[in-house]
Amino acid sequence: MNNNKIRNILTLEEKDLKELVRTGNISVCVVGVGRIGLPTAISFANSGFSTIGYDINANLVHMINSDDYPLKDEPDFDEMFHKAVQNKKLHATIDDKDAITNSDVIILSLPTPMDKNNIPDYSAIISVGKKLNQLLEQNSLVIVESTVEPGFIENELIPLIEGNGERLKVGRNLGVAACPETANPGQILRDFSVVPRLVGAIDKRTLKIVEEVYRHVFKAEIISLPDCKTANASKLTANVFRDVNIAFVNELAILFEKLGIDILTVLKACDQKYNFEVHYPGAGVGGPCLPVNSYQLLNSGKFLNGKLKLVKAAREINEHMPHHVIELLVDALNEAKKSVNDSTIAILGISYKPNVKDSQLSPAEYIVKELLDLKARVKIYDPFFKGEEAYSLKTENSLIDAISGSDGAILVTAHKEFCDIPPSLLVEKMRTPVMVDSRGVVDTAWAKKAGLVLRGVGREVIRK
Amino acid sequence: MNNNKIRNILTLEEKDLKELVRTGNISVCVVGVGRIGLPTAISFANSGFSTIGYDINANLVHMINSDDYPLKDEPDFDEMFHKAVQNKKLHATIDDKDAITNSDVIILSLPTPMDKNNIPDYSAIISVGKKLNQLLEQNSLVIVESTVEPGFIENELIPLIEGNGERLKVGRNLGVAACPETANPGQILRDFSVVPRLVGAIDKRTLKIVEEVYRHVFKAEIISLPDCKTANASKLTANVFRDVNIAFVNELAILFEKLGIDILTVLKACDQKYNFEVHYPGAGVGGPCLPVNSYQLLNSGKFLNGKLKLVKAAREINEHMPHHVIELLVDALNEAKKSVNDSTIAILGISYKPNVKDSQLSPAEYIVKELLDLKARVKIYDPFFKGEEAYSLKTENSLIDAISGSDGAILVTAHKEFCDIPPSLLVEKMRTPVMVDSRGVVDTAWAKKAGLVLRGVGREVIRK
Repeated sequence: MNNNKIRNILTLEEKDLKELVRTGNISVCVVGVGRIGLPTAISFANSGFSTIGYDINANLVHMINSDDYPLKDEPDFDEMFHKAVQNKKLHATIDDKDAITNSDVIILSLPTPMDKNNIPDYSAIISVGKKLNQLLEQNSLVIVESTVEPGFIENELIPLIEGNGERLKVGRNLGVAACPETANPGQILRDFSVVPRLVGAIDKRTLKIVEEVYRHVFKAEIISLPDCKTANASKLTANVFRDVNIAFVNELAILFEKLGIDILTVLKACDQKYNFEVHYPGAGVGGPCLPVNSYQLLNSGKFLNGKLKLVKAAREINEHMPHHVIELLVDALNEAKKSVNDSTIAILGISYKPNVKDSQLSPAEYIVKELLDLKARVKIYDPFFKGEEAYSLKTENSLIDAISGSDGAILVTAHKEFCDIPPSLLVEKMRTPVMVDSRGVVDTAWAKKAGLVLRGVGREVIRK
Repeated sequence: MNNNKIRNILTLEEKDLKELVRTGNISVCVVGVGRIGLPTAISFANSGFSTIGYDINANLVHMINSDDYPLKDEPDFDEMFHKAVQNKKLHATIDDKDAITNSDVIILSLPTPMDKNNIPDYSAIISVGKKLNQLLEQNSLVIVESTVEPGFIENELIPLIEGNGERLKVGRNLGVAACPETANPGQILRDFSVVPRLVGAIDKRTLKIVEEVYRHVFKAEIISLPDCKTANASKLTANVFRDVNIAFVNELAILFEKLGIDILTVLKACDQKYNFEVHYPGAGVGGPCLPVNSYQLLNSGKFLNGKLKLVKAAREINEHMPHHVIELLVDALNEAKKSVNDSTIAILGISYKPNVKDSQLSPAEYIVKELLDLKARVKIYDPFFKGEEAYSLKTENSLIDAISGSDGAILVTAHKEFCDIPPSLLVEKMRTPVMVDSRGVVDTAWAKKAGLVLRGVGREVIRK
């Protein structure tokens, strides 16, 4: 348990608060020590705070307490993790009471996924909200780092924590703040240093404490906002901006293929303009953030007449891209006089983005499913998922295993290993030298010279 | 007429070309000496080239030849204009034969507007294309600066210039290039210096000549692209990116008003993030470029199954904004217990953007029309359109004239004069102190204090 809970953090004088922050005499609980929660807990522990990670995953809790670092593709935190555990600044528990009642600051870093109908699923955070109603001591502070819709904290979470309001009440003895995480998997340490933190709180004294604590822990700039909903709206706006702009270039990619224009050449030219922000087309937009964030915003706007048509169109376009990749494959196979249902197709990459082990909502899933529906045989290779199981298939152990004897290869993820495959190797090893490059990493002239039948998202058709 | 036509620019050796460029011994004709064409002609003339402006507007031609500078809100070119005319480097004509046959380089700077159904109207450029077929000498160079759809030059313009191909033929004795202008009205001189020029041509020797000539005239970087259609696609992509992103923030603005979130606060926070590009909401997107460019792209994609749904949604959102401004006005008037059809409404600004005299496709037009339909009385004031006629109404001579006795003011354009109107002045002069600020320039706290009933696009509702 956390031994140095000070109690009543909400009622501290500014001078006392600063001193307790400086000396690390505040106890912190991070609820949910996963992908973002664990690096957050490590950061708090290494800033001097006695930090407890609470999670329902007993295996994860055991790994942490055994000093066994669980986030292999976030190596930056490895050393910091061991230091924090060995210094007894960080430990984990599955005991909610121990974690919550003995902490001054409760940070919620719980997943906010969506269900099969793309409706945001806040059940994890709602369940913890109910526990906080029972377990949270008065004058403690709850900080929501999970990404939620603007208004969720004010209209749903706080009423759950307050319950009948007799024991706990914001404005009186309950501090609640939003500080949505803004870190990208694979570069969390960097993002903790450079991507500004958005902070909004239920009242000024709560905001003051969060600013003080977060400034002590994170190098990144703290941007204070008028309330929780504005912080959550800002987080969603910045991410949905990306989903919308990727949809824009995906839409252009499909047009430019038909017009014989190379989109990467166009984007390179546009990127020279002072007010252009470049995004790249691809096989689709996956991961735990962007697709969900767009659906969160759509859910926020569901009461609006006409809904949010631009965000909705963006989702439709990005969700169409895996099918478009199949269309490109069929076109290329056709040129090589092969039908899909007579072919073996190698999927190169299932991570939703390069150089991380994370296949959440990856376009690869749809691509594999459609290929199987078309009666193709599918081989999967991803350097981060060697010899594992993905989409009910056993993954290959090497690129060579994947491409040997195949009739088509689809590059889904621009992992480093895939960025410099010699086209001649593909031509040599494949039964039919056909490739769809969804990420624009293959040199088209080189491919043409080697005799590879190539299609790319937004690229000119190269015919032999 | 241009006296130093060299003839056969297309067949020059590189060394000779460089020397002729350096010494200004090339004659240039700019077809269309309007908003962009005249600054272009001035730039060529002041770089030493004997330049002739050809236009069907006899009045404009007369002004130019009388040394009377016509572009009052582009003052940067005033002095350069007089110098060019007085040095006899620049003159204008309505005689197409004189202009075209006596020039080595023909630059098309013709308007490419759209019709009432939002279909791009290339009639001006098509008409000149037919003239070029008759008048252009062999081995001359045609450069299209007008913004056209990718493929228009290859598929429509060149066949017109070639005709039966006996006298003129690309690849043999006709050079055609695209160099779409990328200058913003009000800051053309600056943009000629800093915004890269996109150049694509029908063949390599044509590209080489355009690069050489444009590098001599413009300080901005020259970006060479593989063909004309890629240059045109790049121009449209950079502009439609803006239309789409303005639509995104307009869509958010309407949502955030309902959620009680201030969009300017959100955008300021997002703008701190390294991969965010800020755009601002408003009363709509007007001007000669963005709306037309989106419709040009939509026209390019009309053959696609499903069309370009994101670009289409963006247009729908931006075209809805003038009506949304009326909704905000009605809401504010309601708070002041006034109905629209009993009110006098002052429109502040009819330019489509701040600090220029240009009301092309301005949202003000729709706003005025809807107000008149609702039986309001409308007063218009714009510092660039004092005492003129706009939308069949006589415009006011001053801000005070416009607001005195009015029941509502709609700030449509963020002209400098409108950015620091004291709310107390509005309260003092107006009969009913109601304002809609579509551009986020009014300080909401100040307005509240002064007793102004204020609504803003994407702003929190301020109630007294």
